[in-house]
Amino acid sequence: MPTVNAYAATSATGPLGPVTIERRDLGPHDVKIDIQFCGICHSDIHTVRGEWGDRPWPLAPGHEIAGVVSAVGAAVTKHAVGDRVGVGCLVDSCRECANCKAGLEQYCSRGIQTYGSVDRDGTITQGGYSTQVVVTEDFVLRIPDGISLDAAAPLLCAGITLYSPLRHWNAGPGRRVAIVGLGGLGHMGVKLAHALGAEVTVLSQSLKKESDGRRLGADHYYATGDPATFEQLAESFDLIINTVSASVDVNAYLGLLDVNGTLVNVGAPPQPLPVAAFSLIPRRRSFAGSMIGGIPETQEMLDFCAEHGIGADIEVIPAERINEAFERVLASDVRYRFVIDASTIG
Amino acid sequence: MPTVNAYAATSATGPLGPVTIERRDLGPHDVKIDIQFCGICHSDIHTVRGEWGDRPWPLAPGHEIAGVVSAVGAAVTKHAVGDRVGVGCLVDSCRECANCKAGLEQYCSRGIQTYGSVDRDGTITQGGYSTQVVVTEDFVLRIPDGISLDAAAPLLCAGITLYSPLRHWNAGPGRRVAIVGLGGLGHMGVKLAHALGAEVTVLSQSLKKESDGRRLGADHYYATGDPATFEQLAESFDLIINTVSASVDVNAYLGLLDVNGTLVNVGAPPQPLPVAAFSLIPRRRSFAGSMIGGIPETQEMLDFCAEHGIGADIEVIPAERINEAFERVLASDVRYRFVIDASTIG
Repeated sequence: MPTVNAYAATSATGPLGPVTIERRDLGPHDVKIDIQFCGICHSDIHTVRGEWGDRPWPLAPGHEIAGVVSAVGAAVTKHAVGDRVGVGCLVDSCRECANCKAGLEQYCSRGIQTYGSVDRDGTITQGGYSTQVVVTEDFVLRIPDGISLDAAAPLLCAGITLYSPLRHWNAGPGRRVAIVGLGGLGHMGVKLAHALGAEVTVLSQSLKKESDGRRLGADHYYATGDPATFEQLAESFDLIINTVSASVDVNAYLGLLDVNGTLVNVGAPPQPLPVAAFSLIPRRRSFAGSMIGGIPETQEMLDFCAEHGIGADIEVIPAERINEAFERVLASDVRYRFVIDASTIG
Repeated sequence: MPTVNAYAATSATGPLGPVTIERRDLGPHDVKIDIQFCGICHSDIHTVRGEWGDRPWPLAPGHEIAGVVSAVGAAVTKHAVGDRVGVGCLVDSCRECANCKAGLEQYCSRGIQTYGSVDRDGTITQGGYSTQVVVTEDFVLRIPDGISLDAAAPLLCAGITLYSPLRHWNAGPGRRVAIVGLGGLGHMGVKLAHALGAEVTVLSQSLKKESDGRRLGADHYYATGDPATFEQLAESFDLIINTVSASVDVNAYLGLLDVNGTLVNVGAPPQPLPVAAFSLIPRRRSFAGSMIGGIPETQEMLDFCAEHGIGADIEVIPAERINEAFERVLASDVRYRFVIDASTIG
């Protein structure tokens, strides 16, 4: 099996550093991608620090991959050498269950994640903090010409994580949508909800990023640190997407929903959130969760972004600054997504 | 104002007893109903015991009212003397808000409840544990000939409380619906979900009422006291309606939902329910609440019940046994709803 350069964690406690990892030989349905950019997602940090369970080491994270096809297997029909492509959080699924058949591969219980998962051949998948990756063609997305590869990379996780619930819960004209948290996920939520035609409100801890929020497409911007916000906005949203992984007072946010409104968590706080039945019952509200998106919807999202000139707002860094970037992600010190320049790996 | 006989609480701590209460003079849009039957709802007990806040005394509860029209105001067009009619939890609403205009009067923030609410004229509404009631015609429902008035009474609260979420979340052919708890609410849920064509499972503490459950229309019946139930039924429902007001392990029930499934609470436990984000996110599940139904949907439900020969399973009691019935409701010792014979009041 060919080896490629990567940036990986060698334990749950140490920093990431340069290693070589193996990629499988090109199978008939495989696509080899020369990675150009890979976004840094908060999940990468959780995973390599063992916060979501122990992993085999070394482990290269990264599931916001953008690059160019450099080889295709004999049976590949969907992609050709030279194509601009992306890979998100999934590199395969069972393809047989009702979810897979419905294009909801993200909810397949046998889905194979881009890194740290057991692949079909028994090896452990390695992510996009590397120079090349081999992925079965059905899990490779087309990146339209309208988006640069660096700004496209974060769409593969941050973008689809917001796009899918916005579409599922009908964000669009006449709908009042709030995005909680203006970070990597939240800034995509604002751009996408705005492009979908919804009336968009940002609910952020403070007003510090208000000018950014409005530039990204927000119609309104409120500080959640101010208790008056929760009175003023009571019962005024159809959909709230909470991108904050820290624990929040979920009943306070439920109180902002109008009748039939839904609060969707896309971030996962470690502790359970206490939900009062009376926050839900008297207004037929829902508290829901959503996880990335399936392959057809991810392609739809990329096409939608190209059509609307949407990419992530990014800070491109060389590989040697990955550990520093992790610290800055944890400190919310990035506007709004770090993207690794893969040419600097190894 | 005319006085009528009623059975009422005179404090939050004493038993109910016979009193006289006032009913307003018949206004042009009012309907006077000779009450024949009134169901006993768990809410009646919560309310008269002050568990949902203090109330003015005396207070006659009762919002599952069935009777016959004995007089109508000059402008009434919807009902005539002799009509068989019912009144549920609401006797008026603002009629101007988006919810009222959408027929969702139950979610109007200025709705007037059948008892213990401040009415438009400033008086406190008094419920159906009485011999007559005067209600504005738009909040009076027609009870079709196909249902006897005693079995119809509980439909006005227990029936619509289950019918509305079953319809809202699309219970029907091909949908797997579970009803948690086989009491006054739950037994209506089983009948209605079955008549709507869904595959119905009862989740009850034990198997004690299994033969009842199957007779009511359940296809399957499981004991929640047996931990194996939660393994066996993992990810196997599209919709679960929880009628239990006691606190339950909501994450265990969420684990029974398939992708896109919804757990709906219609009972309100006093303590918040801790919801793990990971119970929702990886299967796009929702945790929701629902409260009775609007006037058009309540009429739809009554018509549906008549068409399908559905009434509540009841035990008719004289007024003097109301206090004893309250204790038996609290002990879950009723199959499945007490109905007061109003001819025994006063």
